[in-house]
Amino acid sequence: MRSAAKMSRRNFLMTSGAATVWASGTAHGYTAAEMRVKAAGGDLTGVSKWDLDTPALCVDLDKLEQNIATMRKSLAVVKVASRPHAKTHKCPAIAKLQLAGGSIGICTAKISEAEVFSANGVEPILMTTSNVTPNKIRRAMAIRKANRQFIQAVDYPQNALDLNDAAKEAGISADIVIDVAVGTRSGVPAGDQAVALAKLVDKLPYLKLRGVISYDGSAQHIKGFKNRLDQTLKRFEPSIETLEKMQRAGLSTEIFSGGGTGTYNILPKAPGVTDLQVGSYIFMDCQYLEIGGESNDEVYTDFAPSLTVLATVLNTYFEKSITTDAGAKALTLNKPGPWVIGEKDFVYNAGSDEFGVIKYEKAERSYKVGDKLELIVPHCDPAVNEYDQLYAIRKDRVEAVWPIAARGHSQ
Amino acid sequence: MRSAAKMSRRNFLMTSGAATVWASGTAHGYTAAEMRVKAAGGDLTGVSKWDLDTPALCVDLDKLEQNIATMRKSLAVVKVASRPHAKTHKCPAIAKLQLAGGSIGICTAKISEAEVFSANGVEPILMTTSNVTPNKIRRAMAIRKANRQFIQAVDYPQNALDLNDAAKEAGISADIVIDVAVGTRSGVPAGDQAVALAKLVDKLPYLKLRGVISYDGSAQHIKGFKNRLDQTLKRFEPSIETLEKMQRAGLSTEIFSGGGTGTYNILPKAPGVTDLQVGSYIFMDCQYLEIGGESNDEVYTDFAPSLTVLATVLNTYFEKSITTDAGAKALTLNKPGPWVIGEKDFVYNAGSDEFGVIKYEKAERSYKVGDKLELIVPHCDPAVNEYDQLYAIRKDRVEAVWPIAARGHSQ
Repeated sequence: MRSAAKMSRRNFLMTSGAATVWASGTAHGYTAAEMRVKAAGGDLTGVSKWDLDTPALCVDLDKLEQNIATMRKSLAVVKVASRPHAKTHKCPAIAKLQLAGGSIGICTAKISEAEVFSANGVEPILMTTSNVTPNKIRRAMAIRKANRQFIQAVDYPQNALDLNDAAKEAGISADIVIDVAVGTRSGVPAGDQAVALAKLVDKLPYLKLRGVISYDGSAQHIKGFKNRLDQTLKRFEPSIETLEKMQRAGLSTEIFSGGGTGTYNILPKAPGVTDLQVGSYIFMDCQYLEIGGESNDEVYTDFAPSLTVLATVLNTYFEKSITTDAGAKALTLNKPGPWVIGEKDFVYNAGSDEFGVIKYEKAERSYKVGDKLELIVPHCDPAVNEYDQLYAIRKDRVEAVWPIAARGHSQ
Repeated sequence: MRSAAKMSRRNFLMTSGAATVWASGTAHGYTAAEMRVKAAGGDLTGVSKWDLDTPALCVDLDKLEQNIATMRKSLAVVKVASRPHAKTHKCPAIAKLQLAGGSIGICTAKISEAEVFSANGVEPILMTTSNVTPNKIRRAMAIRKANRQFIQAVDYPQNALDLNDAAKEAGISADIVIDVAVGTRSGVPAGDQAVALAKLVDKLPYLKLRGVISYDGSAQHIKGFKNRLDQTLKRFEPSIETLEKMQRAGLSTEIFSGGGTGTYNILPKAPGVTDLQVGSYIFMDCQYLEIGGESNDEVYTDFAPSLTVLATVLNTYFEKSITTDAGAKALTLNKPGPWVIGEKDFVYNAGSDEFGVIKYEKAERSYKVGDKLELIVPHCDPAVNEYDQLYAIRKDRVEAVWPIAARGHSQ
C-alpha cells in the first residue's frame, strides 16, 4: 500500500475497494447462527460475504496477512520485535496468526482477556494493566500457574507487595514488568519512583522483574509523520532515562516495550526498545488512515484497511440521504468516519443507535433499498467489541468464522 | 423524583446517591461467570454490588419499579398505553416486568432482537424497522407463524408485496403497521404516499393492516420542556394528518404509536395516539437527565436513574486526576457524561477504550487505588449493548443476574 505519491482520502476510497457495492435481490443472507453451524460442519463452500446478514463484521485475509508481513519486515530491519495488543481483535485465531507471523507474544489490557487467550492456547501474554483488586490478583496468579509465559504489569509498591503475597500463596514466582507512565493515564511516574518500584519488585522473593513497559496512548494519532516523530521521541525520553537508571542499578531490562501502530517506525529509534505493542495495524481504521504516514501525508497507507462492516440500505426516500442498518451499535461513535468504500463524497453519521445516515452531494451510482455497502470502521478496537464473530474473507468468499472470544471482557 | 424546586445537575448528583463510594480491601470480587453460577444455583445471599468484578452493569430494582409505576400512572390519566422499546434493555426479564406493569407489548428495532424476545416468551412484539432482505423477511414470517402477536413495520410498496408473498408461502396473514416518517431517517413520507401504501397493505390478501407508527428520534432530546413540546407537536402534524386521511379512507388505525421518554407527557396531547414507544425511562442516562423536565428545567427528574456502571480506581499518582478501569468499551463515547455519583465536580472522560480518566478541581473525599465508583451512563442503549449480563440490585444487594439476551443483536 506504500506509495511515494500523495494520495487523498477521496482517491484512497476509490482505489481501495472499487466495485464492492452489491445489488439486492440474490443473496441468501445467512444469519450469525447459520454461519456458525456451517463453519462447525466445515462447509463454507461458496458463501460470499454479500450473503451475510448485516451488519456483519469482516476481515479481508489477504490484507490481514499483508499487514502482518509488513510489520515483520519493517521491524526485522531495526531488530525490534512485535508483541501485538490483543485488545484490538479479542480473537484467538488472529493472535495465533500473529505469533506464526513472527510476533514474540501478545498483550492484553484486562485479566478477563488474558484468561480467554490463555484458555485458547495462546501462552506468551503480557498484561499491560495492573491487577489491583484481590479477585483480579488471584486470577492473575491462576493464569501464571497454568501458563509460565504470563507476565503482568505493576505500577504501585503496595500492588507489588500484594502480588508477592499472592504468588507465594499460589506457590509460584510471578513475572513482572514495571509500567512507566508517559502522560498521566496509567503507570508509575518515570524516574526515581519507577526505579524504586523496580528495586522493590527485584527484591521480593516471589516476583521476577522482567523489565519495563511504557506506552504513549496520546502519541499514536498525532497527525503528520514529522510531528508525530518529534513528539513521540521527546515524550519518551523520561522512560529511556528510567530504563538507563535501572540498567545502572543492575536491574533486569530484558523487556522494554511500548509504541503502537502510529509509532511503529518511530519508537525503534529510541535506545533499548525491545518490542512494540502494536494493535490496529492488522485491521486499520479511519482514525489511523487519517494521521498520514512517512511516505504519504494525506493517508496512512503503511497498512491495508482489512476490517470492514457490511451494511444494508433501508431507506432512499429523502433527497441526498440514505439510511442503512448500521448505527452506533454496529460501528461506535468514534470520529472520523465510517468511510464508505467506493464513495468519496459520502458523509456517514452513525449517531443513531440502530441506523446509519449518509448525506451526500454526489454518488458514484444510484442506490435502492436492499443494496449493500462496505464500510471502514471509525476505530477498530471498540467496533470489534460490538460483535460475537468475525468473518474471515478471501476474495469476497467466507473462509472462516472466528469467534471474538474475548468480546465484552472489559473486566 | 418530581420536585417543584429547581435542581441543578450538581445537586442532583449529590442527592441521588450519597455515600455510594466503596473503599477497597474487603470485597470478594465475583466474576461474571461466578455470578452466573451463583444465580443458577439460586444462592445470591449476601452478595453486595460492591462484591462484583468491575466494570459491572447494574440496575437498581427499586428505581426500575418506580419508573415503570410512574409511566403507568402518568399514561393512565391520558388513556394512552405504553409499548416500551426493548432495544434499550435487550433483556427479556425487563420486558416481562414492563408487561406485568401494564405495558401492552414491546417494540424491537431488529429481527434478531425480535427472535430473542419471542424465544424467551415475550409475545406482543412490534418491530419498528422494516425487514427488506429475503432472509429477514423469511425470519419475520417464521416469528409471526409461531407468535400471533408479532407486528412488523413497512415503509415501501415493494416491501409490502414481498411480505405478502412471504406470508402466503408461510401460510399466514402478517400484521403490518405503516412506518410514517418524521424527519428523514426512516419511514414513508407522510401524506398521500403513506396513505397509498396503507391502501396497498389493506388490499394485499396475506397482510393485515393494523395502523401506523411514527417516531420522532430528533424530538426526544430537545432541551427545555416548552421547546420540546412545541417542536414535537409541530413536527408530528403531518403524521396526524396522514392518520386522519387513512381514517377517512376507512383504513385501520387501531395502532397509532410514537413518542419516547423525552415526549411521554407531550405526544398524548396529539389526537389519535394509542401508545408510546418509550425506552430509556426504565434506566435513564446523562443524555436524558440533562434535557430538563416540565417541573425542573435543569434536570429531567421524572424518572430515576436506575442504571449504573461500577468502576475501580486504578491510578491516583497524578494531580487532580484519577484513572479507572471503565473506558469506552464499558460506557461508550456518548456525551455528556458519565456522571460520578456523589461527586459533583468530576469530569469523566471515557475516551480511552479501556480506561476512564477523571479530572477534577475538588473532590468530596480522597481516593486510593482499588476504591470503587458508581457512574450514571452517558446513553443507556449502547452502554447496555457492551455487557452480557445485568446485575439486578436492591438496597445494594444482588437480587438477580439477568442475561442481556439480545446483546449484540444488531442484525
